Amino acid sequence: MENYEFDTVILGGGPAGFSAGMYAARGAISTAIIDINMLGGQPSNYLELENYPGMKKIGGFDLMEKFEEHADMFGVQKFPMQEIETVDLVSVPKIIKTKEAEFKAKTVIIATGAKSMKLGVKGEDEFIGRGVSYCAVCDGAFYQDKVVAVVGGGNSAVEEAMYLTKFASKVYLIHRRNELRADKIIQERAFKNEKLEFIWDSVVEEIRGTELVNSVAIRNVKTGMQSEIAVNGVFPYIGITPNVDYINGQIEQDSKGFIVTDETMKTSVDGVYAVGDVRNTPLRQVITAAADGAVGAVYAVKYVELAKEVVV
Amino acid sequence: MENYEFDTVILGGGPAGFSAGMYAARGAISTAIIDINMLGGQPSNYLELENYPGMKKIGGFDLMEKFEEHADMFGVQKFPMQEIETVDLVSVPKIIKTKEAEFKAKTVIIATGAKSMKLGVKGEDEFIGRGVSYCAVCDGAFYQDKVVAVVGGGNSAVEEAMYLTKFASKVYLIHRRNELRADKIIQERAFKNEKLEFIWDSVVEEIRGTELVNSVAIRNVKTGMQSEIAVNGVFPYIGITPNVDYINGQIEQDSKGFIVTDETMKTSVDGVYAVGDVRNTPLRQVITAAADGAVGAVYAVKYVELAKEVVV
Repeated sequence: MENYEFDTVILGGGPAGFSAGMYAARGAISTAIIDINMLGGQPSNYLELENYPGMKKIGGFDLMEKFEEHADMFGVQKFPMQEIETVDLVSVPKIIKTKEAEFKAKTVIIATGAKSMKLGVKGEDEFIGRGVSYCAVCDGAFYQDKVVAVVGGGNSAVEEAMYLTKFASKVYLIHRRNELRADKIIQERAFKNEKLEFIWDSVVEEIRGTELVNSVAIRNVKTGMQSEIAVNGVFPYIGITPNVDYINGQIEQDSKGFIVTDETMKTSVDGVYAVGDVRNTPLRQVITAAADGAVGAVYAVKYVELAKEVVV
Repeated sequence: MENYEFDTVILGGGPAGFSAGMYAARGAISTAIIDINMLGGQPSNYLELENYPGMKKIGGFDLMEKFEEHADMFGVQKFPMQEIETVDLVSVPKIIKTKEAEFKAKTVIIATGAKSMKLGVKGEDEFIGRGVSYCAVCDGAFYQDKVVAVVGGGNSAVEEAMYLTKFASKVYLIHRRNELRADKIIQERAFKNEKLEFIWDSVVEEIRGTELVNSVAIRNVKTGMQSEIAVNGVFPYIGITPNVDYINGQIEQDSKGFIVTDETMKTSVDGVYAVGDVRNTPLRQVITAAADGAVGAVYAVKYVELAKEVVV
């Protein structure tokens, strides 16, 4: 069992974590990033991004490699493949235990992200980035004049379906019930949208394709009837959930589990910050996660300065 | 007099404005950026940045050129050198009049930035980026083992002076009075900092150097005595003020004039968003301005979708 001490330990090595690491280390506090997987976070799996300002087109893996090199430049220490066992965020110092090591830290920056809930059907994982997407703002522009399906019936599903009608020639909204959960005003707007076709009482059973997606198999839950719809893309919007299993109620979370922060990314516990998709943020993009990381790190650096008496 | 109509008009073509433009145009609404100067904003004047995540070192002008090309890619229309005469943010549509043109818009995204207050002394403009900086978080790391002076006595001045002691071998804090305005707890911490030396009752009269800054000339306001201190850098922290002259009380501003927004960048007026340095933000960096732009644009796109009946 290795023992480490840092001014700040960042949980999660995606865009938010790397940016926080770069800003913290550049702010001259000792900084570690730990991650349950290899570093890189969600974007590592994206074939291509065209919405990180300043980089017109870049592979997700390449972008995260640039983020990592940037953090390296200021001496961030990296600990991939660390499965977290327990986290004590309230103690002084704060303590993170993984299977391999124990980390003591004056501040913790939580950047473990969130995951979109999956349909759990055949073809879903296989076609991620090749027709399956969980982010219309990210990928909608790739579907100009194409046909897509959105799955879900809440505000997000309906809003994103409407967003996709700006690009796609047709958008199916597949929902397991015969009415939407979305707000009335959003529903009214959706029902007026001529590009939007609702498929009620239905669930997706399989996503099919060869190189790229070319259809979804659906089943009507009332009649049991199965059918297949030709689509170029599928956007499941059945929910998003933060990666926070290890928190155990130590800090305030909202009703969906996202960590509550103020504008400085401070959580309900002193010295603990949350950045990126894991917090209750108004937008989940690489650029917003990276900005969160910068803000959280700058305030963590100030906290370390003011809490110099804290013995680690 | 030219007449234009857009879904969104963005005031200001810096990092926040370009990012907002890119996201808005990619979100398939018609988008214009207007600026009183050439496009590029504050960073265009920075010799080098090393804190935009993913770009280890880049000239400020080069970075803003990349932002501009990125906005171009999605068809943002650009109107540089537009001196704003009047802005009507409350009317439907909103109207921006410049000396050359009139713009009608469903939404306005304000991204006109802020300016650091200047000392107004000889050498100050001349040495910007070569020893004169208004941002310790941005430039502190360039002053490893160097001697710097901070000018001011409020929270920002004292906090940034302490921040600079992480890098510099010595930091002078030059203040025109014989006590600080900063909060007590910050003062106590500052007085304990051995790298920090206070120069009371004094004002900077000139910043001197050849290629780079090498001294400041100061004058004691009580005794009239003049002296010169060898420094490598000067950080004036006497205030920062938003560029909002044209607003005329149409939207809510804080006591310093910064525009008040919610987390979606919405201002007190429907359809008007404020992003970047011009709003009451917890951190002013290229990365945070760019993220603000993304958030404001995504919500502006939603607003345009919901407000389709609005005739422009």
